[in-house]
Amino acid sequence: MADQVRDLAIIGAGPAGLAASVYASRYKLDNVVIGPEMGGYVSTTHLVEDYLGFDSITGLDLSQKFVAHAKSFGAEMLLDKVTGIKRDDETFRLQTWNGKEVSAKALLLATGTEHKHLGVPGEDTFEGRGVSYCVTCDAAFFKDKTVAIVGGGDSGAKGALHLSEFASTVYWIHRRQTFRAEPIWVDRVKEKPNVVFVLENQIETIDGEQTVTGVTLANQYEGSRTLKVDGVFVEIGSNPDPTLANLVGAKTDEFGNVIVSSHQRTSTENVWAAGDNTTESAIYRQIGTASAEGSIAAGDIYEYLNDTRRDWNAKVHPLVAD
Amino acid sequence: MADQVRDLAIIGAGPAGLAASVYASRYKLDNVVIGPEMGGYVSTTHLVEDYLGFDSITGLDLSQKFVAHAKSFGAEMLLDKVTGIKRDDETFRLQTWNGKEVSAKALLLATGTEHKHLGVPGEDTFEGRGVSYCVTCDAAFFKDKTVAIVGGGDSGAKGALHLSEFASTVYWIHRRQTFRAEPIWVDRVKEKPNVVFVLENQIETIDGEQTVTGVTLANQYEGSRTLKVDGVFVEIGSNPDPTLANLVGAKTDEFGNVIVSSHQRTSTENVWAAGDNTTESAIYRQIGTASAEGSIAAGDIYEYLNDTRRDWNAKVHPLVAD
Repeated sequence: MADQVRDLAIIGAGPAGLAASVYASRYKLDNVVIGPEMGGYVSTTHLVEDYLGFDSITGLDLSQKFVAHAKSFGAEMLLDKVTGIKRDDETFRLQTWNGKEVSAKALLLATGTEHKHLGVPGEDTFEGRGVSYCVTCDAAFFKDKTVAIVGGGDSGAKGALHLSEFASTVYWIHRRQTFRAEPIWVDRVKEKPNVVFVLENQIETIDGEQTVTGVTLANQYEGSRTLKVDGVFVEIGSNPDPTLANLVGAKTDEFGNVIVSSHQRTSTENVWAAGDNTTESAIYRQIGTASAEGSIAAGDIYEYLNDTRRDWNAKVHPLVAD
Repeated sequence: MADQVRDLAIIGAGPAGLAASVYASRYKLDNVVIGPEMGGYVSTTHLVEDYLGFDSITGLDLSQKFVAHAKSFGAEMLLDKVTGIKRDDETFRLQTWNGKEVSAKALLLATGTEHKHLGVPGEDTFEGRGVSYCVTCDAAFFKDKTVAIVGGGDSGAKGALHLSEFASTVYWIHRRQTFRAEPIWVDRVKEKPNVVFVLENQIETIDGEQTVTGVTLANQYEGSRTLKVDGVFVEIGSNPDPTLANLVGAKTDEFGNVIVSSHQRTSTENVWAAGDNTTESAIYRQIGTASAEGSIAAGDIYEYLNDTRRDWNAKVHPLVAD
């Protein structure tokens, strides 16, 4: 395996990585997709209703369609994690968690983001024992129980909605009065009689013994700063992990997003980035924007490897047809 | 109808306009989509295999899914063409071909592109009488006949492939030796025994009487500059029509693409643009990039109308979650 030098190694198997693979295969680039989870974040999302062409589909179903699409063009997929990157001349040599080595001429960083933590006492102690960062993974464990969910964005709203189908009571704790979530999601949560809004408040500690038994709030809620809950779901957003970008010297911004040009090139030659971990997509964090970035990167990689856009810092001009 | 001022009028019903409508509806913006053809260009495309999530689907089927998705969130759709735009203070008043008037606070130009013409003698004379700009629309009329297709890009290759299913012989005329089309499409055309490659050549005149009978080539092909054909398909790319951009004073580049910022704002306040008619998408012309731009525009329009991004020239910063 180590001897074969591929055209392109795609790190990350979410929409950006898979769209890049679809296009790379169509451009006849020998490509491999390496990711710890096929479909990426999408696969753990409850419902997706904003990816054009699908009114309403579970994240798992949609991610399976994405994977099948990439596979249909012959993409090789490795369920694995890249742990090291070395560079000899124009070849990258990737080491993986499972001890494999993959060599490629071009690299696409499509690693997405990771869940942010609250950073309060008890959070780490009770992770996996009442504290969860994945509603779709863990909601069913809280059937007829009482849970809290934190976060005012789309994932907070969707999480509250999904939890309301299992838990007897869901406290939606949010530090502001207004929500960053799309209004359609907030409206749907409001229709659920078992979701209780706890606004302008936040969790100070997560309390428990073997497992979570409650939370202590910053401000009183109905006369008390303690709230009895069996579980706490944290959905306060996510940040990219800049480790691999650092390894190849690609510049990132203060949040860890890889800085990219309009054609997805990073500051390091032969390294592209696409999806939620880039400065462009970070503003939107949508399946559609991530997959568009993946397709754009693949097109540019094809042009670059075929010597038609070899100047790394050249501006891409609009297509003049034919 | 004239009295109701909508939040957003979307001009164009292709992937960009429909994705914008999906997001706008989810943001609870009162929006209307106005276009002469629901689904836009996609609806006349033979096969789509590069929009993530669909391995292989006809353009018509995919465009119907897009339209159904937008309708499922309550979008109002007008099968019509905008012929005039006036502005009073913060309201745009659109006049349509069918004599309707639509008022809106914000405008999204998602008008896509129009087919380029060869500009040779006989082309206009025989349009609709052997000369066609839409393979999927007209291929079936040429069953067991001889046709020529011009253009070395994806639409040329896909067109040749589709025509080979009907015509007895297809001449693929291209002025270069190499193709801009994705290699996967060129390979598939090569597999068709009834497609004849006529390279480094071009059409000088399109000849005929009542209908097309042949073409005159710039260079000899197999000893002659005349080629007998019953039809000529022109697939040499497309350019946007800048008329509506000009009407509202939004700047365009030399090809007629509307110049947009990274959040799809044009040079004219309250006017956004998305899809193949923008300087960003013009490089790619993909369904995925167009729909991503539509969703980005809708998000920014929502923020703008809600006063959170009111400074028209402000830079959009990466999302800081919660």
